[in-house]
Amino acid sequence: MAAPKEMGALAMLLVMAFLSSGSSALPRQLKFSAKHGEFKILQVADMHFGNGKRTPCQDVLPRQVASCSDLNTTAFVRRMILAERPDFIVFTGDNIFGFDASDAVKSMNAAFGPAVTSGIPWAAVLGNHDQESTLSREGVMTHIVGMKNTLSQLNPAGAHVVDGFGNYNLEVHGAEGSRTENKSLLNLYMLDSGDYSTVPSIPGYGWIKPSQQLWFQHTSSRLQKSYSSKPEAQKGAAPGLAYFHIPLPEHASFDSTNSTGVRQEGISSATVNSGFFTTIVAAGDVKAVFTGHDHLNDFCGELTGIHLCYAGGFGYHAYGKAGWSRRARVVVASLEKTQKGSWGTVKAIKTWKRLDDKKLSTIDAQVLWSKSSTNTQRIL
Amino acid sequence: MAAPKEMGALAMLLVMAFLSSGSSALPRQLKFSAKHGEFKILQVADMHFGNGKRTPCQDVLPRQVASCSDLNTTAFVRRMILAERPDFIVFTGDNIFGFDASDAVKSMNAAFGPAVTSGIPWAAVLGNHDQESTLSREGVMTHIVGMKNTLSQLNPAGAHVVDGFGNYNLEVHGAEGSRTENKSLLNLYMLDSGDYSTVPSIPGYGWIKPSQQLWFQHTSSRLQKSYSSKPEAQKGAAPGLAYFHIPLPEHASFDSTNSTGVRQEGISSATVNSGFFTTIVAAGDVKAVFTGHDHLNDFCGELTGIHLCYAGGFGYHAYGKAGWSRRARVVVASLEKTQKGSWGTVKAIKTWKRLDDKKLSTIDAQVLWSKSSTNTQRIL
Repeated sequence: MAAPKEMGALAMLLVMAFLSSGSSALPRQLKFSAKHGEFKILQVADMHFGNGKRTPCQDVLPRQVASCSDLNTTAFVRRMILAERPDFIVFTGDNIFGFDASDAVKSMNAAFGPAVTSGIPWAAVLGNHDQESTLSREGVMTHIVGMKNTLSQLNPAGAHVVDGFGNYNLEVHGAEGSRTENKSLLNLYMLDSGDYSTVPSIPGYGWIKPSQQLWFQHTSSRLQKSYSSKPEAQKGAAPGLAYFHIPLPEHASFDSTNSTGVRQEGISSATVNSGFFTTIVAAGDVKAVFTGHDHLNDFCGELTGIHLCYAGGFGYHAYGKAGWSRRARVVVASLEKTQKGSWGTVKAIKTWKRLDDKKLSTIDAQVLWSKSSTNTQRIL
Repeated sequence: MAAPKEMGALAMLLVMAFLSSGSSALPRQLKFSAKHGEFKILQVADMHFGNGKRTPCQDVLPRQVASCSDLNTTAFVRRMILAERPDFIVFTGDNIFGFDASDAVKSMNAAFGPAVTSGIPWAAVLGNHDQESTLSREGVMTHIVGMKNTLSQLNPAGAHVVDGFGNYNLEVHGAEGSRTENKSLLNLYMLDSGDYSTVPSIPGYGWIKPSQQLWFQHTSSRLQKSYSSKPEAQKGAAPGLAYFHIPLPEHASFDSTNSTGVRQEGISSATVNSGFFTTIVAAGDVKAVFTGHDHLNDFCGELTGIHLCYAGGFGYHAYGKAGWSRRARVVVASLEKTQKGSWGTVKAIKTWKRLDDKKLSTIDAQVLWSKSSTNTQRIL
């Protein structure tokens, strides 16, 4: 690639850094399918990868113990990719279980391997265990960003420093050849929910900090402005989905009476409320939040117009429940057909889960959002 | 005042703007008393000023009704100033009750009048009623900033735009002539807690936004660095006090069993948690938060090392409880004596309230913080 003469030294440096980062191609622009008008996301939560074949499984049935290892996690990723053929794969942290991974790079290369070789664009955020091997959180995220076919980013370039590593947003454009092919119709927000509190008087897990919330707020505002601007100015806001590891305190609002899926353990959010739920409600575009962290919870519940969803535990070298299948969450956003027969904006967002059983059973299918019911929310 | 030759055009402009703002003198640097090693703050919450003599009182005894007006509020401010001789007066919002003030400027001039004429430095933040007369929130705060003897500021100059009007910090330096006369030993954070939610799906009052929290976080961090830097480098962090109008959701943690003072009505915080309590706990320097808004609550309760205190209702044209005296809160920070007989850093922060009865009775005196008990909190 020849550099245009007007390209500054810094830009050249960035391009060179990118080309030397191990990626074989420039990241592709995510877009809705021109054939089906859909965009499908596979969420893989808590792989807890260790050293591969040598790393045993936790909480499986007695008959499964002998032959079970990290390779079962790998096989499940492959089966999910084949069964669902997603447009995008997102790994929501605890991708590796650092304490049992003797080499973070090798563990990550193996863990993300099926995504890399599938050729499908993928991205990851960090959990609370990813930095427990041979790399810091920055080191882990930097390695991920350099892997093939990933759209992961270290952090946004911006006016202020953002806490954590792996805060970024991804746009999903309209279908190729359609009038919205250069416009984002679905926005994905990826955030680093931290690992553990570093404040002596606050025990427990980390949280999304004010700097990250301000970044999110500015990004959401920018995307909403762009969505409603020419060309192809749209009404309202493009729906957004947020992916991160640790659930919010608001996840505790749900039980079996007001959610779909199960709550089989406590909500291991931070012990304090850092206000991110308020920030996303105020922004107005996010329709659902997807986390992992609590492997035995896989529910979705709706609060103030926003669905808070767990994916359920995916990895075999992670606590679970023997006989209760490992699982993954799928989300699909669908475009409406315009009167002229082309694709319009997002009309619905649906989700379901797949179990790692013989049939990869589909369970708990539900509509998270539809244009008709809630798109008036932002009209003041 | 002659401008030094090296003064830039922008700085000159700022000085000129200040000199033309109506202030008769440059704001004074707040400092501890050289005689007593103390700094005393009078908090006046919810004056709810209207038009003065014509504006009647609410919720007073039948025998008080005929002769009671805003002038009783004015008289109470004067009595408090004479009785306590504070070093600083802070008005925590609903300074005027806009709906019943036919001219916001006149109402504010009357409401803050006793502070202005006392010659004591004073500052104000906004409540949810201040903008209901003839000026917007920005207009109200701009007028306040231009008044005599005030240290109020419109907003910090900084890298990012901060939500609201009247977010600023004030430093209280060591005593004149002491080694810390150029160092802040006590930090005051003033914030705009907003008026009402503008988010359709969130009812109720406003809240402190991510932009304000990031400003607070950066300011606290800068002040802590300065406190521990030469000259006169100190250990730990200088204690901080935060003043704003609307209580936090965490104020609801208290009842008569775990607080000092009374809780006679619900906690009218925002209906959502915007995370500011987490942000101040994480910052580590703030020892107490002082709000108004709920006139019938006047308690202080401690949560995670931070006291959350109401001042209790002050103004007569505000709801209250007949026979339950209007009141104000006083806070005094005291310096320790060093072995060499000079003043050291803050050793204790105490508070009490005064009632608007014949004797200006003092009640609920308590220690909010002392150096020996909690100054180790920030040691990791």
